[in-house]
Amino acid sequence: MAGSTFGTLFSISTWGESHGKGVGVVVDGCPAGLPLEERDIQIYLNRRRPGQSRFTTPRTESDTVEILSGVFEGRTTGTPIAMMVRNTSQRSGDYSEIASYYRPGHADYTYDCKYGFRDYRGGGRSSGRETIARVAAGAVAARLLEELGITVTAYASAIGPVEIDRSRFDLSVMEQNAVNMPDPEAAAKAMDYLDDCRRRQDSCGGVVECVVHGLPAGVGEPCFEKLSANLAKAIFSIGAVKGFEIGDGFASAKSCGTQNNDPFCLDENGNVTKKTNHAGGMLGGISDGSDLVFRAAFKPTSSISSEQRTVSQTGQEITVSVRGRHDPIIVPRAVVVVECMAALTVLDMLLVSMTSRLDRIKDFFTTAQPAGSDRP
Amino acid sequence: MAGSTFGTLFSISTWGESHGKGVGVVVDGCPAGLPLEERDIQIYLNRRRPGQSRFTTPRTESDTVEILSGVFEGRTTGTPIAMMVRNTSQRSGDYSEIASYYRPGHADYTYDCKYGFRDYRGGGRSSGRETIARVAAGAVAARLLEELGITVTAYASAIGPVEIDRSRFDLSVMEQNAVNMPDPEAAAKAMDYLDDCRRRQDSCGGVVECVVHGLPAGVGEPCFEKLSANLAKAIFSIGAVKGFEIGDGFASAKSCGTQNNDPFCLDENGNVTKKTNHAGGMLGGISDGSDLVFRAAFKPTSSISSEQRTVSQTGQEITVSVRGRHDPIIVPRAVVVVECMAALTVLDMLLVSMTSRLDRIKDFFTTAQPAGSDRP
Amino acid sequence: MAGSTFGTLFSISTWGESHGKGVGVVVDGCPAGLPLEERDIQIYLNRRRPGQSRFTTPRTESDTVEILSGVFEGRTTGTPIAMMVRNTSQRSGDYSEIASYYRPGHADYTYDCKYGFRDYRGGGRSSGRETIARVAAGAVAARLLEELGITVTAYASAIGPVEIDRSRFDLSVMEQNAVNMPDPEAAAKAMDYLDDCRRRQDSCGGVVECVVHGLPAGVGEPCFEKLSANLAKAIFSIGAVKGFEIGDGFASAKSCGTQNNDPFCLDENGNVTKKTNHAGGMLGGISDGSDLVFRAAFKPTSSISSEQRTVSQTGQEITVSVRGRHDPIIVPRAVVVVECMAALTVLDMLLVSMTSRLDRIKDFFTTAQPAGSDRP
Amino acid sequence: MAGSTFGTLFSISTWGESHGKGVGVVVDGCPAGLPLEERDIQIYLNRRRPGQSRFTTPRTESDTVEILSGVFEGRTTGTPIAMMVRNTSQRSGDYSEIASYYRPGHADYTYDCKYGFRDYRGGGRSSGRETIARVAAGAVAARLLEELGITVTAYASAIGPVEIDRSRFDLSVMEQNAVNMPDPEAAAKAMDYLDDCRRRQDSCGGVVECVVHGLPAGVGEPCFEKLSANLAKAIFSIGAVKGFEIGDGFASAKSCGTQNNDPFCLDENGNVTKKTNHAGGMLGGISDGSDLVFRAAFKPTSSISSEQRTVSQTGQEITVSVRGRHDPIIVPRAVVVVECMAALTVLDMLLVSMTSRLDRIKDFFTTAQPAGSDRP
Repeated sequence: MAGSTFGTLFSISTWGESHGKGVGVVVDGCPAGLPLEERDIQIYLNRRRPGQSRFTTPRTESDTVEILSGVFEGRTTGTPIAMMVRNTSQRSGDYSEIASYYRPGHADYTYDCKYGFRDYRGGGRSSGRETIARVAAGAVAARLLEELGITVTAYASAIGPVEIDRSRFDLSVMEQNAVNMPDPEAAAKAMDYLDDCRRRQDSCGGVVECVVHGLPAGVGEPCFEKLSANLAKAIFSIGAVKGFEIGDGFASAKSCGTQNNDPFCLDENGNVTKKTNHAGGMLGGISDGSDLVFRAAFKPTSSISSEQRTVSQTGQEITVSVRGRHDPIIVPRAVVVVECMAALTVLDMLLVSMTSRLDRIKDFFTTAQPAGSDRP
Repeated sequence: MAGSTFGTLFSISTWGESHGKGVGVVVDGCPAGLPLEERDIQIYLNRRRPGQSRFTTPRTESDTVEILSGVFEGRTTGTPIAMMVRNTSQRSGDYSEIASYYRPGHADYTYDCKYGFRDYRGGGRSSGRETIARVAAGAVAARLLEELGITVTAYASAIGPVEIDRSRFDLSVMEQNAVNMPDPEAAAKAMDYLDDCRRRQDSCGGVVECVVHGLPAGVGEPCFEKLSANLAKAIFSIGAVKGFEIGDGFASAKSCGTQNNDPFCLDENGNVTKKTNHAGGMLGGISDGSDLVFRAAFKPTSSISSEQRTVSQTGQEITVSVRGRHDPIIVPRAVVVVECMAALTVLDMLLVSMTSRLDRIKDFFTTAQPAGSDRP
Repeated sequence: MAGSTFGTLFSISTWGESHGKGVGVVVDGCPAGLPLEERDIQIYLNRRRPGQSRFTTPRTESDTVEILSGVFEGRTTGTPIAMMVRNTSQRSGDYSEIASYYRPGHADYTYDCKYGFRDYRGGGRSSGRETIARVAAGAVAARLLEELGITVTAYASAIGPVEIDRSRFDLSVMEQNAVNMPDPEAAAKAMDYLDDCRRRQDSCGGVVECVVHGLPAGVGEPCFEKLSANLAKAIFSIGAVKGFEIGDGFASAKSCGTQNNDPFCLDENGNVTKKTNHAGGMLGGISDGSDLVFRAAFKPTSSISSEQRTVSQTGQEITVSVRGRHDPIIVPRAVVVVECMAALTVLDMLLVSMTSRLDRIKDFFTTAQPAGSDRP
Repeated sequence: MAGSTFGTLFSISTWGESHGKGVGVVVDGCPAGLPLEERDIQIYLNRRRPGQSRFTTPRTESDTVEILSGVFEGRTTGTPIAMMVRNTSQRSGDYSEIASYYRPGHADYTYDCKYGFRDYRGGGRSSGRETIARVAAGAVAARLLEELGITVTAYASAIGPVEIDRSRFDLSVMEQNAVNMPDPEAAAKAMDYLDDCRRRQDSCGGVVECVVHGLPAGVGEPCFEKLSANLAKAIFSIGAVKGFEIGDGFASAKSCGTQNNDPFCLDENGNVTKKTNHAGGMLGGISDGSDLVFRAAFKPTSSISSEQRTVSQTGQEITVSVRGRHDPIIVPRAVVVVECMAALTVLDMLLVSMTSRLDRIKDFFTTAQPAGSDRP
């Protein structure tokens, strides 16, 4: 099945494996006229690149993106934007051993069940390198949202047991620490915790929080194509995500209606707004004009060098220790991936929402400019 | 946009509003030859019907389903199965007041933003009655899964602050209590808590847990169409869901790799299995042959008769008290909805998974029987 | 598979069999605010209703449509519009015989191959009654297109060997003759030919031509989602269609570039236009602002009372004569079906085309009115 | 919109322009275990490569394909197969002039209407080079169909006014002549005609016929996803196609039921078959086990060096002569494109058809082998 395609109007199709020739994406349905250059993409890719701190795999990849189509004279043409990142640092020899058994927590066993065999080099398609394609595509989406005054911002809100303190929340420090936490004290504690994990040859999980600002009300469809539902799918499609919540999320299950309902009120301009945002910016699955707020729980990195019990490909119970270059935690590098999947989802549903009202469709076609009117 | 259609091969399209003529669904892509009668559907619908306890709205609807197409001589024909439930108990007069303001926690405001106006009677399309269509379709999916040895079972695992105790877990008691909890002591406590909520003119949230048993390994696609991602979307498309987690979910974010990884081992027949199931039955988004386990967090019912602040349609800040017939909690009636959305998702992806391997496709077409061979 | 759903943003899902309880459709994605009542639909359904002339089956069905959802206070709400036509005149006894053999030219055999058995009453799902659902949905699309100044008009351009003479073309006479031909002389000849067919217990084919007027340039997507490609699919999805061509169609295969290319020129307002329209209104699969013009070839009605050789369900070669109430020609009643499939396709792609340019998307969101601004 | 993606289970996404960095495709949903190497693709690409005769553009491109992902140890892995052909011979200088006006018959004007500007170099995305991606993907589909005993064969059946004589039909000569006609006499006449066209600085159209052999009965879905409808869309998505017909096609519109119906009979093994094939292998849109037969009409090449009237980008009526390297006819090189689009369509619907019957689904899951059983 077409499992590697996402989106209805702004759609992406990704490809590539950890140790193949590279990783790439085709972005189809990007509106024409968006200024775009490789640098716009590279900035995002650099944020997920390995080797940037002691908590990320020392594998060094430049992860340099090449735009192959869909951009002409510095602007998108409306036709597919293909992008590719060549793999350069793969050392297949590292992985010959893991061909022979199923790594606990990894997709080795399920891929074998599904396909009969697998590309065992570095996890193949199930590798974290697959997210390069998401980030490249998401950078285009974020660039376009920016033109519409919409921003998407993610950060680590918890690393293992260490959570950020909202009273110290400061986005500006996020990029200054290796764990992408917007709270310097929590970041320091988290780094201590991670050092301890590494000493114990162990790994840990964490939580990424994301805020979408500037989205107009009315985005998202009723029933199955709720904005909330599509965000849930988008985020849960990232490997290692085990939980997703919007607004107060699981806490709202313990709350009462009198506390959880956000009263509507009027702002200084007489527009409808809300004073609280327990709902996380969506009501009935449709954006209400407030910030979208959601969180994703990531499990601990599955690859650990501690000894583990498992089964070999030949059907023996064995003890293994997964060697190789692995992050002790996924969260810091996953921050930009969450941001990009959110941008892709929000943009797609924003475009879809343009067709919800006859009066606005009429306006659209009435004010349409004649062809070629923007060229001399 | 086609927001009311769900599924790729086994696909459903729902329609209907709270106070229109009825609610219905078209199930398209149901394989031919499944024994099916209205009674199979009615059993499921009866589980979500209102008026069954003091914790559900006293609105009495028989919710009687009519199969309109797709079944011939007691078996599905492979063509669309249309089903309809006529609304019978709607009292539109109850709702005339709410036309004039935006109910906090409801989709009134976002529907107006999106569509310019709304069917204000009982929430229109955003009403909980929309789930009738999901349950009718899900009953067909569950019936088909049963033929393949796969069962889907949901229950309330938490009502407000009251959680079930796993040591007392007993599915057989679930249907005997009004809150669908598989723990008689927790159920009793939960009912006390709900009585208290009602006295305070308040509402509360809760958690539904669901287990899918018997699913073979290899179901789910890599990347965006992971089984986990599609379950997340399916469950988050249910109104009032604010959180979703698989296996250990948010707890895994605080865990370590050494604890969270499930070691593989061999069962008595020498087949690969796992002793623990922190992963909730999916690795890399693909089923691993273990039970799928996931949870959904529901927010408190938005309609409460306590006074709330909000904004009127004419742009005044006002105080309101939402009257009408409402459940103080959504969870007990949502249990069967979760079950049905899970059945729909699992079945669809199971069918898709049939095409993953050339060797099995070859076998399939080699062993195909000639046309009409099953008729005398 | 979801074979009964059509369209991306304006999407329809149909259901129903010839001799089941009825036939219906769910229209999903219809923009909100369109004035709509059952009468708008009924006018279209009446155009395809049987029993209106000696060339259509004497089966009398009122084919009365009921709108079940999606319309409130006379306007569409943006949520699914379900419509149903109950079957009233089915006489299942007529069809008991055809359960026992495969009718030549019909889908009896292929349904058996696909599904293992079939609803043999009147062709079940493969009956022409399935088109009721297309016409009901198409009537909504045509109504919406009308609001945007776009009209879709189809007519019979050939009945068997009788073709219309373009010099006598007169749309006003089309509705006055039983064969829906816009040429009174050709219509008279065609009726003579059909009388002859009936005497010979035979049937005949014909051609339907369709013109879409008022469509702006720029509708249709490059590559696979060309407007031409989607029209081809839409029209070829109508039973009995065996050919489809746009503009000069098959004749262009015998033409030269110097003759077939349409030169661009300027109209009196200085806008780009064309003097000829060999292309049929599309270049590169995208509308060019001229009229869309296309034709569909329909095969002769398969049900004939002449003797034919075939195979019985028990595997014997036999001679049969298909009894029952059948049209000697499909074309006159197919005219409105072609019109409706064209309207559905054009509208869907028109909506999709709104998202092709960033500058226009920016304008759209800049001029958006605040929520609820169209209510007092 | 995602206009560059085609297929449901076996899905392709294409990208690239005439004068960009290259052209490519992502094939998603290819079953695992298919032996595949670049040579399998290159054989197909070589059949559409320019510069092979005096009737094709002298532009010389090696059109060498690179497989970037999805193949491991010589077999497909089930994950996306990305393929790319770098452009090497583009001479952008050739095309600077055509930036200034709208070429008659081309998509220059409609792209400008849609997108506001266009990549004018060689037609950009609307260039015939876009079909490289279709052919690369189609080669994979054809390779897989071959494993299932299904073959797809196309050829030119008419070049301008010259048609093949069925009594001289000989597939073996097709590859020996420059026009891909399976009739040596017609091929000779066609080449004379083409020489004459070139002398007159003109171009001509033609017809491609295609036969699919070995497809089992039961492929194709009722209603909108008929095999016929999807083939019509697939073929009409090829630039320059203006007509499509199945079996007797437009001729059936002039035929009678007694002639057009194909009687069923029994073959020597007692299986149901047909002696004639007016239907072209499909009944009710579903394959009947006979050969699929269809034809596509191609318009004359739009680029001609004869003088033509048109409009400049600055809004002046002008006279132009399109210079550059162009084929006087599209048909010979389009043969393999038709074949590939047919292979893609047939394979996708074949996979979908696996899920039509419960009994066969049960068999499938009952006989499933345990994971990894095909590895030692």
